[in-house]
Amino acid sequence: MAGAGLTVAQLVAAVAHRSGERLTANIVGSPARVIRGVAPLESADPGQLTFLANSRYRAAATVSGAGALVLSAVERARIFPTPPTDKKTLIECETPYAWFALAAQELTGPDAVHAGVAPSAVVEPGARIDPSAHVGPGATIETGAAVGPRARIGAATFIGRGTVIGADSKLYPGVHVLADCVLGERCIVHSGAVIGADGFGFAPLDGRWIKIPQSGRVVIGDDVEIGANTTIDRGAMGDTVIEDGCKLDNQIQVAHNCRIGAHTVIAGCVGIAGSATIGRGCQLGGAAMIAGHLSIADGCVIGGGTLVSRSISEAGFYGGSFPLMKHRDWERNAALLRHLDDLRNRIRALERQLPRKEPP
Amino acid sequence: MAGAGLTVAQLVAAVAHRSGERLTANIVGSPARVIRGVAPLESADPGQLTFLANSRYRAAATVSGAGALVLSAVERARIFPTPPTDKKTLIECETPYAWFALAAQELTGPDAVHAGVAPSAVVEPGARIDPSAHVGPGATIETGAAVGPRARIGAATFIGRGTVIGADSKLYPGVHVLADCVLGERCIVHSGAVIGADGFGFAPLDGRWIKIPQSGRVVIGDDVEIGANTTIDRGAMGDTVIEDGCKLDNQIQVAHNCRIGAHTVIAGCVGIAGSATIGRGCQLGGAAMIAGHLSIADGCVIGGGTLVSRSISEAGFYGGSFPLMKHRDWERNAALLRHLDDLRNRIRALERQLPRKEPP
Amino acid sequence: MAGAGLTVAQLVAAVAHRSGERLTANIVGSPARVIRGVAPLESADPGQLTFLANSRYRAAATVSGAGALVLSAVERARIFPTPPTDKKTLIECETPYAWFALAAQELTGPDAVHAGVAPSAVVEPGARIDPSAHVGPGATIETGAAVGPRARIGAATFIGRGTVIGADSKLYPGVHVLADCVLGERCIVHSGAVIGADGFGFAPLDGRWIKIPQSGRVVIGDDVEIGANTTIDRGAMGDTVIEDGCKLDNQIQVAHNCRIGAHTVIAGCVGIAGSATIGRGCQLGGAAMIAGHLSIADGCVIGGGTLVSRSISEAGFYGGSFPLMKHRDWERNAALLRHLDDLRNRIRALERQLPRKEPP
Repeated sequence: MAGAGLTVAQLVAAVAHRSGERLTANIVGSPARVIRGVAPLESADPGQLTFLANSRYRAAATVSGAGALVLSAVERARIFPTPPTDKKTLIECETPYAWFALAAQELTGPDAVHAGVAPSAVVEPGARIDPSAHVGPGATIETGAAVGPRARIGAATFIGRGTVIGADSKLYPGVHVLADCVLGERCIVHSGAVIGADGFGFAPLDGRWIKIPQSGRVVIGDDVEIGANTTIDRGAMGDTVIEDGCKLDNQIQVAHNCRIGAHTVIAGCVGIAGSATIGRGCQLGGAAMIAGHLSIADGCVIGGGTLVSRSISEAGFYGGSFPLMKHRDWERNAALLRHLDDLRNRIRALERQLPRKEPP
Repeated sequence: MAGAGLTVAQLVAAVAHRSGERLTANIVGSPARVIRGVAPLESADPGQLTFLANSRYRAAATVSGAGALVLSAVERARIFPTPPTDKKTLIECETPYAWFALAAQELTGPDAVHAGVAPSAVVEPGARIDPSAHVGPGATIETGAAVGPRARIGAATFIGRGTVIGADSKLYPGVHVLADCVLGERCIVHSGAVIGADGFGFAPLDGRWIKIPQSGRVVIGDDVEIGANTTIDRGAMGDTVIEDGCKLDNQIQVAHNCRIGAHTVIAGCVGIAGSATIGRGCQLGGAAMIAGHLSIADGCVIGGGTLVSRSISEAGFYGGSFPLMKHRDWERNAALLRHLDDLRNRIRALERQLPRKEPP
Repeated sequence: MAGAGLTVAQLVAAVAHRSGERLTANIVGSPARVIRGVAPLESADPGQLTFLANSRYRAAATVSGAGALVLSAVERARIFPTPPTDKKTLIECETPYAWFALAAQELTGPDAVHAGVAPSAVVEPGARIDPSAHVGPGATIETGAAVGPRARIGAATFIGRGTVIGADSKLYPGVHVLADCVLGERCIVHSGAVIGADGFGFAPLDGRWIKIPQSGRVVIGDDVEIGANTTIDRGAMGDTVIEDGCKLDNQIQVAHNCRIGAHTVIAGCVGIAGSATIGRGCQLGGAAMIAGHLSIADGCVIGGGTLVSRSISEAGFYGGSFPLMKHRDWERNAALLRHLDDLRNRIRALERQLPRKEPP
């Protein structure tokens, strides 16, 4: 479809369809303009669609060479109080970024599945591969595993015994899903991700560490995306659970027995220690670190680089990271920070000598 | 063994045996109760064993439906001053968590090795694979490498030329051990770990960087566990060394020429820069970062998220991470932190005007 | 060459040649001494070369058993005002570390390429492999991909459709370069690196997240090194770009649409969020985190563990990390930090009562 392109009118109809008629749009300008792809505001050409979702880029939107621009009615009225010349079609809608996302999916076209198992893949007896699924070269599917309809298993990807991969899920090359895990439908797992490695559990004895067998599973819902080189450990006894619609970026560590609520998004390099419970609809900024055995309420937003060391019981925006400074300023301030209690004591001493008056 | 289960009496004998008679236990209640597996306090059923190792979970232990509960004598006397009903057997011992770990190992049963080399594995001439070892599909064993008795090399795992894998070690699928490294006996290495990649060494010249060949090795002792996607670089000239009994979680980076002392445990996402020396029996919390060319004394505990920027010569508990705040509080406090020296100067100015009296 | 060794005179000539006659050296002592390898100051023997690049190691240099020592003229004059005994040859030059790097490369010898495709590799029709290139066992090269002269593709490495690997580049086993990416000449990519996974782009709609197709590429210049388990995401629409001569350590995350200027070095565990622009010749310390949509000027040095949350427009040394403390001191100081505004307010109250006099 992307080859021939779509008219703006066709695109509007397709997005409405993809969204279950949730996303409608108002076309200002020619609905017959043909769109073949998407591009950023700065580089889009007359055959391309772009979007304005942040007023910060209003100036770029005004001069963009894109053939079609999706934006809110408010921005449309502000930037183009009269419709622009014949060169550009405006697509007015409530949620331009979501509309653009679905339009881009439509223009990208379906990601075709080449059903069948590559000759160099190893499928053990007792593994069930749906005939419509694809298994790439060098992949290994162990006994008792099940790969659902239209699922794609990339080259050299490993599916352990008893593991279930849901319909329409796509595992890129070099993914490892160890034994007895469950992955839902329409999931995407990027290269290098490891799902179901042992959790980190050891009991101390006489200065040594005795391994606790990790007998739980990883259970992942539908529509979950897991980034490259992200690791999600199996539970020690119960399971590690990632609920529906979660999106995890690259290089994330999820330890054993964590539960991550539905539709939570987690940016790159985040670490979540064992038995932490993250609510639904949370947003964890890059490199945030979550200590173990705590819980974070639904709808929390955690700033990048924040260490969450205690439970959060109320939705809100939380932070905690050292501010950036010139290195010499940092040295001075860090030295003082080490002795903040001295400063406080000096203030106390002053206060004792100078009893506080009523505030003015 | 796990299928048929074990009586509590059999389990007590097995743990004593596994621990070299170090861990003995006192049975309170029926020694004939059959145990088939382990479970957490909350969900354990009459056929399962659970444990109490932290008084915080005393209430859950009191009402747990587990058939057998291992706990200390002190807790036993406190929770069950008289033996409980016939439904539960108590196992009293000194170190309940370690006892539980060995019991869980016993109930899990041995991890059988299927001796032999998969047809799709590539074993170069000059590699030595012990006949009792297992090499999985698509694995590559280069010339000069040696895989010891009962070792397991997972699917698509890579063992470089000259590398030695000790007896009874288990490498999960997708592990990479580059050339000329040494891995001891009974080690476990999880998927995606990379051992022996080049250290990061470059000499600056005229604004460019010249690579220093990394000719050292990685030498890993016995009973070491290495988590998923953890990386341990080879030394620049000397070796990178991980001593016996160390346990490394996922996503850890160990740079060239580090030495990590025996029985040290390192939680996920930790980074250790080049030529750092970590003592024996240390515990590094998640996402701690250790600067290069420093040393940390035996027995140090480092809090999660701490940046260790100088050597630590004395055992102890160290920390240093920004506390969690509501974001608007963080903004205000971070701004003040940037100018802590101003606050100090204002205190000084006040002190100059108000000479300090003798403390009361 | 490394087997037979080289005389100091041959080594000096070879380094001059490798550097385009940029690096010359003055030999003090016997030019006929034979050198077979390199070693650190402490352990080098009479057949080995070592270096002194940091005056901190002057004492070790003085007593080193190395057959040859490269150092600056200033250090030479200071340590050896008269030439040492016949046991050691001194090599005096301007940039000892860079000289040593090239000498070590010379002594290590060339990394021979065994041209040809392993029988178990899968090369799809339409992929072009230069006859002088090497493709290892179990590697997959998809249609439209091109592997240049003398390039080495490691075991189980994946090259996606349309991706170009430049001449003399070396990809270790288990590297993943997804579709339509470009890697320049003489690059080195270590095991577990993932280049070209989808960027992390989702539009919110009614509490769910809609995927933005990631249609850009990753474009990597010449002479770039990429560490083990490092991830570099493809652009959302435009490209993610790593310019010539960059060196990236292990476990780094580079998000979509970042641009990293030429000859910038990035230490392990760094995370760079989307659309960040890092200048040329920068140095990012380990575990530094760079927020998205900002830019860092050429020549900036960022301390380890620093969170860069705003653009930096001027070259310089920047930092920002919480200082290390004993844990009990940290607890006290962190509590105060949470209420730094209270301290400020108490200072203000004191100042109101005690109007500031002129400074003495």
